[in-house]
Amino acid sequence: MEQPRIKELRRAYGFDEVAIVPGDVTINPEQTNIDLQIGHFTFHTPIIASAMDAVVSPAFAVMIGKMGGLGVLNLEGVWTRYDNPKDVLQSVIECPADKVTPLLQKIYTAPLKDNLIGERIQEIKREGVVCAVSVTPPNTKKFAPLVNEAKADILVVQSTVTTARHKSKSYRGLHFDELVRQVKMPVIVGNCVGFGAALELIETGIDGLLVGVGPGAACTTREVLGIGVPQVTATLDCSAARDYYHRRTGKYVAIITDGGIRTGGDLCKSFACGADAVMIGTPFAQTTEAPGKGFNWGMASPHPALPRGTRIKVGIRGGLQQVLFGPSTVTDGTQNLAGALRLAMGSCGAGKIRDFHKAELVVAPAMKTEGKVFQLAHSI
Amino acid sequence: MEQPRIKELRRAYGFDEVAIVPGDVTINPEQTNIDLQIGHFTFHTPIIASAMDAVVSPAFAVMIGKMGGLGVLNLEGVWTRYDNPKDVLQSVIECPADKVTPLLQKIYTAPLKDNLIGERIQEIKREGVVCAVSVTPPNTKKFAPLVNEAKADILVVQSTVTTARHKSKSYRGLHFDELVRQVKMPVIVGNCVGFGAALELIETGIDGLLVGVGPGAACTTREVLGIGVPQVTATLDCSAARDYYHRRTGKYVAIITDGGIRTGGDLCKSFACGADAVMIGTPFAQTTEAPGKGFNWGMASPHPALPRGTRIKVGIRGGLQQVLFGPSTVTDGTQNLAGALRLAMGSCGAGKIRDFHKAELVVAPAMKTEGKVFQLAHSI
Amino acid sequence: MEQPRIKELRRAYGFDEVAIVPGDVTINPEQTNIDLQIGHFTFHTPIIASAMDAVVSPAFAVMIGKMGGLGVLNLEGVWTRYDNPKDVLQSVIECPADKVTPLLQKIYTAPLKDNLIGERIQEIKREGVVCAVSVTPPNTKKFAPLVNEAKADILVVQSTVTTARHKSKSYRGLHFDELVRQVKMPVIVGNCVGFGAALELIETGIDGLLVGVGPGAACTTREVLGIGVPQVTATLDCSAARDYYHRRTGKYVAIITDGGIRTGGDLCKSFACGADAVMIGTPFAQTTEAPGKGFNWGMASPHPALPRGTRIKVGIRGGLQQVLFGPSTVTDGTQNLAGALRLAMGSCGAGKIRDFHKAELVVAPAMKTEGKVFQLAHSI
Amino acid sequence: MEQPRIKELRRAYGFDEVAIVPGDVTINPEQTNIDLQIGHFTFHTPIIASAMDAVVSPAFAVMIGKMGGLGVLNLEGVWTRYDNPKDVLQSVIECPADKVTPLLQKIYTAPLKDNLIGERIQEIKREGVVCAVSVTPPNTKKFAPLVNEAKADILVVQSTVTTARHKSKSYRGLHFDELVRQVKMPVIVGNCVGFGAALELIETGIDGLLVGVGPGAACTTREVLGIGVPQVTATLDCSAARDYYHRRTGKYVAIITDGGIRTGGDLCKSFACGADAVMIGTPFAQTTEAPGKGFNWGMASPHPALPRGTRIKVGIRGGLQQVLFGPSTVTDGTQNLAGALRLAMGSCGAGKIRDFHKAELVVAPAMKTEGKVFQLAHSI
Repeated sequence: MEQPRIKELRRAYGFDEVAIVPGDVTINPEQTNIDLQIGHFTFHTPIIASAMDAVVSPAFAVMIGKMGGLGVLNLEGVWTRYDNPKDVLQSVIECPADKVTPLLQKIYTAPLKDNLIGERIQEIKREGVVCAVSVTPPNTKKFAPLVNEAKADILVVQSTVTTARHKSKSYRGLHFDELVRQVKMPVIVGNCVGFGAALELIETGIDGLLVGVGPGAACTTREVLGIGVPQVTATLDCSAARDYYHRRTGKYVAIITDGGIRTGGDLCKSFACGADAVMIGTPFAQTTEAPGKGFNWGMASPHPALPRGTRIKVGIRGGLQQVLFGPSTVTDGTQNLAGALRLAMGSCGAGKIRDFHKAELVVAPAMKTEGKVFQLAHSI
Repeated sequence: MEQPRIKELRRAYGFDEVAIVPGDVTINPEQTNIDLQIGHFTFHTPIIASAMDAVVSPAFAVMIGKMGGLGVLNLEGVWTRYDNPKDVLQSVIECPADKVTPLLQKIYTAPLKDNLIGERIQEIKREGVVCAVSVTPPNTKKFAPLVNEAKADILVVQSTVTTARHKSKSYRGLHFDELVRQVKMPVIVGNCVGFGAALELIETGIDGLLVGVGPGAACTTREVLGIGVPQVTATLDCSAARDYYHRRTGKYVAIITDGGIRTGGDLCKSFACGADAVMIGTPFAQTTEAPGKGFNWGMASPHPALPRGTRIKVGIRGGLQQVLFGPSTVTDGTQNLAGALRLAMGSCGAGKIRDFHKAELVVAPAMKTEGKVFQLAHSI
Repeated sequence: MEQPRIKELRRAYGFDEVAIVPGDVTINPEQTNIDLQIGHFTFHTPIIASAMDAVVSPAFAVMIGKMGGLGVLNLEGVWTRYDNPKDVLQSVIECPADKVTPLLQKIYTAPLKDNLIGERIQEIKREGVVCAVSVTPPNTKKFAPLVNEAKADILVVQSTVTTARHKSKSYRGLHFDELVRQVKMPVIVGNCVGFGAALELIETGIDGLLVGVGPGAACTTREVLGIGVPQVTATLDCSAARDYYHRRTGKYVAIITDGGIRTGGDLCKSFACGADAVMIGTPFAQTTEAPGKGFNWGMASPHPALPRGTRIKVGIRGGLQQVLFGPSTVTDGTQNLAGALRLAMGSCGAGKIRDFHKAELVVAPAMKTEGKVFQLAHSI
Repeated sequence: MEQPRIKELRRAYGFDEVAIVPGDVTINPEQTNIDLQIGHFTFHTPIIASAMDAVVSPAFAVMIGKMGGLGVLNLEGVWTRYDNPKDVLQSVIECPADKVTPLLQKIYTAPLKDNLIGERIQEIKREGVVCAVSVTPPNTKKFAPLVNEAKADILVVQSTVTTARHKSKSYRGLHFDELVRQVKMPVIVGNCVGFGAALELIETGIDGLLVGVGPGAACTTREVLGIGVPQVTATLDCSAARDYYHRRTGKYVAIITDGGIRTGGDLCKSFACGADAVMIGTPFAQTTEAPGKGFNWGMASPHPALPRGTRIKVGIRGGLQQVLFGPSTVTDGTQNLAGALRLAMGSCGAGKIRDFHKAELVVAPAMKTEGKVFQLAHSI
């Protein structure tokens, strides 16, 4: 009889399942270089704030930009739907838990106002920092000229799953190669996972790729749709596509791990997997400077028919400066993210991020061990 | 010395251990076709309600049929044992927890009334929907003529484990090939797991196969008997048998994943594993229309010597329409199951269910991560 | 450079990690034969009660013997140290939790009384059932003649880890081949795990082998010593040794899985792994007939320097008859163990236990799923 | 197309994931020899107390030395920064939880006093036990002559990750081969993981290697930096390097597993993986003799920019004598560690520690099984 053809399942890994192995050589953390290059822009802190309404306001984008990082303003959120976005945010923050999903569904059906796009971009540009804005694929053709005209610096095109080949009756498929030629700025596209999908997007000429679909172990996209790839595997696969393209063409595209990063440990693992930058939301939503004032919600939460995720109370844990550069007064890995990256790189003897991509990783599940006490080694 | 011959154990996977990988192509959800074919019947919603007394009453079967789905009426439950089944259901619902197993054992020893079989079938047929009814193998020979005569549309023969070759002293083994020839309607048989057992059943000429034995991770059949195969592996194996038979004969038999599906994510994974339809109980028992009024129990619960499972309070969470088609007001994947299927198919670029069978799956355990906050990506 | 030689770790499995796959053929449970053969004795119920003081009294051994099973009386416990063992048991039962380990340490240092050995054996023999008694290796040479003289039927030699080659200065190594020739009854030895150790013991001419060292996932021997092999792997390995010896010599030695079995599911898996019988403690300690009156403790608990395990309140859950043969009024697999075995065998088409040894097993971890509701299939 | 080059992830194991398999031969525990050799020193108890301020005071080092073990005094902690270290410890112990990290950061920035180094060493030496002291790599060149002059017996150079090749601008890299020639005593270096890093350190001529980076499953170094290798794999790899060097040169270097050991089981597994000794903190911090009086904190806790770990209340559980040699009055593996080692070695037929290195290990995850009751086998 013919052999049964049963689909093979590949093992995928998340942050909690792996650990970085220290190297045979170590270097002092202060000698590491963590610069990020996107197109012609250089950032001294390779950490990007997510295009979420509770995370990035124009003011927040300015602040993180001045610290060497980047904040992406969502052009389809409250900042471009409302003249008074702070009042709208306040109404979400004050809403009782059981009414928040319908409220979000309502807020995000208000029409987008073209004039606000230029205004919000100017609020950021006039402070002298790099201005990055995000749109979803269905709105890209319409908004790209406005973004161009307003002289934003970086265009991010982002949805839950974005591919180079999307089939739609309602709008002609977005062609990223055309978009890249049309706009006069670096383009970042996402989210994607998988070698093939990543390579196809990279080949359209973009400058950065957002990696991550349903990454969190408890992510609602996985509960609702069953779709998702844990971030370690997703980053490894997409980085392999980036390296393949780089070897073939000489062009280096930034891989940006987006989603599921909660601690310095998760962040360091992303880089060790091949990321050039990370995009994070909740750790920034927890800063005193965030517009969400201790709350956060995803951009899939207001979906009218199939909301995924809801408003979550994340609390306020410290200032942006402390989250990025410390000194940390907590020991759970939520502060001094840049310092953690330097220390991890030092432990692996990596002078720059591309060296850190070569670090060894092991599969080493973090088991629940409440009530157990572990001994800690000396400081490096 | 001779090599020790130690039995090899193959790894089997459940819903919580896998995730669907988005494709290299995406399509708009509204362009997907999710039709299900069983024999000459076409259903626009490939979701079947389990033949459980707390789930499918004749009225429920009519309602779900009108929505494009299918409800299977159990011909060995209260509806065919009692003239007043609603009173009997009420007595189960009101029974104190510690007395419910003996009560169920008592209720399900009352004799089956032949006359009620025709009556119940008529209650469904007269509303113009497809009528499916289920019997267990020992009663099939006796009931099949009655079902035939009452002009039901689909016959389901179902027990915990059903094979094409059953050995019994007490009744002559049921031969499904004979049954298929005898009744003038499509036959669905189950439950089964495993390539060999599935192929043998398919080869008897049936039109649908129910897949799933002790599927839930906490399923009582596994506690009591140690028997069970998680649904991802079971569906992959049985689908492989269906495909093998299809390639050889050209006949396509519907694979129906039955058991353990709680969310849209589980449902989508079933289809990505090769299912053409799913059979679910609890999500329907949680509707306002279900006869169980917020309670549910399995058909193995009343077993006189070895009951498995008991009455469970599942609560009432919404209407049938909302569970099937949304819009969802919750974010845990329990509403808008058809919408979730379309969105997942879109993410994988699958225009119809047989395309979705080719989606890639990864092993990606969902770890417990209470207290952690995850960031959510943009809506597709 | 030479390749590093790093020790390989083989994966071992426990009950909670595997499941039995139903067969391609099924048979009616009542047509199964579950007889156990040890030497010239046949038992109609292949379930043996552990030689623990809270489980087997002479009276309990008589009762289970009359039901077709076997109870092993521990000849180094309270029954042979005290004329009034019931008072001693009562003192353990009534002792406050924080004082019970020292109390057990004290009770089990009282001297063994040779005269009580014959008396206890007579209490069982005079009721006409098979009498099995257990001793530890250091005491075997001294007690074997007494056991022989008192005309016990089966001698069990048992310690945490027993091998055919033990090195000791304090007593000349026990040679099981000599023991087998000396006593005029079947000899059961254990515990052991692993193909090699099992084969060496089997080759000494014994009639039964106890399998299991630190089997429970939470077993204290593993916490204290780090030693243990989960029961699925242990039983598979030792059965392979039994089969190897059987093929070579034609002699069939009974494999008895001992430890960690809590439910019918665990019991069925033991047999599917190659066991001919199981030895259980706690499920019997939970019967109304057990001398522990709802408490249990292991024979390693009183170890003077390194106690492992302590007195545990296990509660009283039902009568011995119900635990063995049902009918079950609970749905957690703790009652009707023999019925569960027959039903599982039926699902695998196994007419007798040696057929059941060929059942397929899959690795299918039982994940914690509290709060989830699973749907249950029809009764077989 | 070129094959994607995706980084491979090796599986690493921690204590909770493995178990020791008993051997084919057993020996009586009292016939085992557990001596440890470091340079020309022999210790009858191969258990070393960590260089943590809450664990080893000069008085504690004397006590454990007299019992055959070794305590390492941290030369960069309170004992060498303060004339009144006990008052300083008391202030940590009494500090409210939310203020303890800043307090530790402050305490450990006080200057080190050269004169106290000699005084503390004398406090230990004058009692006639072996005196071991620890320094971090940046301070080694400065302190080594002082340590030499004060006639300490063993020098430990320890940081979170130590390699033979460290690159720094601020101090000329420490060369361990030079250090070994310079000081007139055995040198122990760590911590390290991995075959390559271990081999390079061993080749510098040291006498002992500390193994373990972020070993605990919940260790903060892993949360904060993402770095760590579980101890079973770390010890296996470093032991393989030791064995490789030993085969090539005939010199045997002691492998010391340091971190994450909480029970006798963990300790025994370390030795079965190839360790010659273990270094433990918390079990000693829990003794009545420990200076931490029921509290403990790691030496990375006071890191000024990136503290990892904090002060933990560990409680006081018994005397040092009982922890090392019993008799144990508890059953959780925290007392009689030396007895547990002897018993485990006996079960594997290992007469000395190097024999125990050959014991078989299996991967056998310890699953959470609260509420379950396990039966315990007879005492050996």
